[in-house]
Amino acid sequence: MGKAFVLHSGGIDSTTCLYIALNQFAGEDVVAVSVDYGQRHIKEIAQSRTITQNLGCEHMTIRLGAQPESMLTNPHQEIPNASYSELAGVSPTYVPFRNGQLLSYIAGIAHAKGGSGSEVFFGAHAEDAAGWAYPDCTPEFIGAMANAIYIGTYTQVRLVTPLQWLMKPDVIKLGNTLGVDYAPTWSCYAGGKLHCGTCPTCRSRRDGFIAAGVPDPTEYASDPTTSKGVKDV
Amino acid sequence: MGKAFVLHSGGIDSTTCLYIALNQFAGEDVVAVSVDYGQRHIKEIAQSRTITQNLGCEHMTIRLGAQPESMLTNPHQEIPNASYSELAGVSPTYVPFRNGQLLSYIAGIAHAKGGSGSEVFFGAHAEDAAGWAYPDCTPEFIGAMANAIYIGTYTQVRLVTPLQWLMKPDVIKLGNTLGVDYAPTWSCYAGGKLHCGTCPTCRSRRDGFIAAGVPDPTEYASDPTTSKGVKDV
Repeated sequence: MGKAFVLHSGGIDSTTCLYIALNQFAGEDVVAVSVDYGQRHIKEIAQSRTITQNLGCEHMTIRLGAQPESMLTNPHQEIPNASYSELAGVSPTYVPFRNGQLLSYIAGIAHAKGGSGSEVFFGAHAEDAAGWAYPDCTPEFIGAMANAIYIGTYTQVRLVTPLQWLMKPDVIKLGNTLGVDYAPTWSCYAGGKLHCGTCPTCRSRRDGFIAAGVPDPTEYASDPTTSKGVKDV
Repeated sequence: MGKAFVLHSGGIDSTTCLYIALNQFAGEDVVAVSVDYGQRHIKEIAQSRTITQNLGCEHMTIRLGAQPESMLTNPHQEIPNASYSELAGVSPTYVPFRNGQLLSYIAGIAHAKGGSGSEVFFGAHAEDAAGWAYPDCTPEFIGAMANAIYIGTYTQVRLVTPLQWLMKPDVIKLGNTLGVDYAPTWSCYAGGKLHCGTCPTCRSRRDGFIAAGVPDPTEYASDPTTSKGVKDV
């Protein structure tokens, strides 16, 4: 009756989704899908593979075609030392319609390899959507893509977004109750050996653990209150 | 105020769309986008380039990542000698969620290169949608993708589908009034030197010209009433 295909970046949100999928599908029917879209923080794919294999799931990496340039694919552009709330409006790390592409690609795979009853798990949450920083994480976008995927696969594949209405601390709290091990997850955009600690996603990660009251297993290279923007650490 | 990005296979429908876009945008603001998704009838990309350059538009080819296997990407699988109406249910030439992928990709390009006010032209028509042969050509799918694209690009890019409610003969009649030259267009799935004349899309092409009462400029390799299924001619 189908398989679960989890869009897995190796970060906190998609790893929480992976555990949710494992609560609903047998381990051998859960496939974690990493996407290589030319991102500078390619380390996330290695982390995704490690996490997935430890859980006994299948792991696959797909490669998107060449992307329009963005901060996430240009190693010479500086990633800001700022939180998402400080970055009003369009996020500088938005990659044009990236999630539309990722979801379309994984929907095709789910239809071909999983068949009827398959589900695509996508870990977009309310903090991504806040202020339309990432319009392709909003409930409006998700609803539209869910319809497109359901219709376009002969109603065989559904889009599932269990974190859609949660803020980051709530995602971490939920994951904590599910026994998620966040130590091997990777969030940082900068692509260094350690989490830089100052890019928008590091700040969200650090703040999320604090607000959730869950111990943060992450070693950060620097403190956001004392550092400036970083290139790759 | 934006550009037109026409998803252009070099066939009848997308070439008609190209002419419609040229009625609404200046020639230098119309970009025809061909997609290499591993299709055996790769000839369509060369035809697209020829048609586009004759009209003074920009042409670009994008490459999708590896696709799930289908008849259109496996040269060893026989393409049936049948019309779409004879192929009840799922079309054997359906590529899982292909149009979702194509539209998502081109939406990202339109957002990055065309900016606000850009439009993506997609030539899906009522004959593609009939009987849900291609669910990713139905009005339901198009409506969902239009929402996803509009929302996911910060409402900068719209999806435009001017052929959505037309059957093939009506598309040809419309194109004829717009002065479309159908001679260099390419439809055949088989990928030979001439249109095979017997695959589903050749039959639709031939029948479309007859029903439209428009002279068919196409040279076909064989007649559908006397031939069996073909491999590459």
